[in-house]
Amino acid sequence: MSIAIHPAVDGGIAKGAEGFSGGTLRCHCTRDPVEVNVSAQVAFNHACGCTKCWKPQGALFSVVGVVPREKVAITAHPEKLKVVDESALIQRHACSACGVHLFGRIEKKDHAFYGLDFIHTELSKEKGWQGPEFAAFVSSIIESGTPPSKMQAVRQSLEDKGLTPYDCLSPALMDLLAAQAARAKGTYRES
Amino acid sequence: MSIAIHPAVDGGIAKGAEGFSGGTLRCHCTRDPVEVNVSAQVAFNHACGCTKCWKPQGALFSVVGVVPREKVAITAHPEKLKVVDESALIQRHACSACGVHLFGRIEKKDHAFYGLDFIHTELSKEKGWQGPEFAAFVSSIIESGTPPSKMQAVRQSLEDKGLTPYDCLSPALMDLLAAQAARAKGTYRES
Repeated sequence: MSIAIHPAVDGGIAKGAEGFSGGTLRCHCTRDPVEVNVSAQVAFNHACGCTKCWKPQGALFSVVGVVPREKVAITAHPEKLKVVDESALIQRHACSACGVHLFGRIEKKDHAFYGLDFIHTELSKEKGWQGPEFAAFVSSIIESGTPPSKMQAVRQSLEDKGLTPYDCLSPALMDLLAAQAARAKGTYRES
Repeated sequence: MSIAIHPAVDGGIAKGAEGFSGGTLRCHCTRDPVEVNVSAQVAFNHACGCTKCWKPQGALFSVVGVVPREKVAITAHPEKLKVVDESALIQRHACSACGVHLFGRIEKKDHAFYGLDFIHTELSKEKGWQGPEFAAFVSSIIESGTPPSKMQAVRQSLEDKGLTPYDCLSPALMDLLAAQAARAKGTYRES
């Protein structure tokens, strides 16, 4: 039995359009929605099982990717935005009315992902965004109520839908984090 | 090119002998070695890339597994044992003379792995231990000086030698950790 992951996965994963250069993210408010313009294609887009990322009602996973922070501009109703958890590494700027997360930003300058903002492309009507390419923090969905006995079927569904499941980030991203840790410790070697 | 991982991997991975019930771990001191008797087969034995596990000279990975803590008894020279880092989750009891880690113990009673001690079966002369079954914290070897450009070849070598590489623990263990986190938060569901 195939398990529903997220609308952007279950309906077939979109391939990014060549030359696509972004769009406008909008929160779910019917009046005065917050708008955020993103002038870049998304990178490392993925399904995420963590309990902190925003996801639409009923979805088992979030879908989230990154863009350079200088490509992100709030274009309407910045007054409605509020950081969900100031103590979190990723500062998630959410609409205080509808709860949707417009973008997540890392303010820690020595972090490997500093300079990248986390966005949910489903908040944009534009077509051409690259769909999710892998699944991260899969085991974490147990923390939002998925029974452990269901995990094998969840991982199988992810594989079947084209997303390799990882319980942390993907190897490429984990290597970036480890390289940053190595630089901080003075153990980094280029070759 | 195949990359050397650890002697217990490179020489072919041992299958555990049926009915095998343990052996004696000895540190590397030629005089008065610390001895620890383990009266159980090892479980979840794996190659570990983290920077804290003990590994033999020249090995890229550690090989480490778990046994019930009540099956672990110090039988010679307990006075030489010292905890490497009291602040670490796993208290690694090492020989203060030769530096070999005899066993690692979790003292945090609400941890998913409480009750299990971490051991290196290569410290025992007995044959019959189950060899490593997967590779964990693979990206972390970058923190001990492996160049990121070499990681693809390392992961390929692990696969070729029969060990699926993970950048955290294996899915089964990650699910156990998530289930414990869910219980602590009150979000755990059995079905």
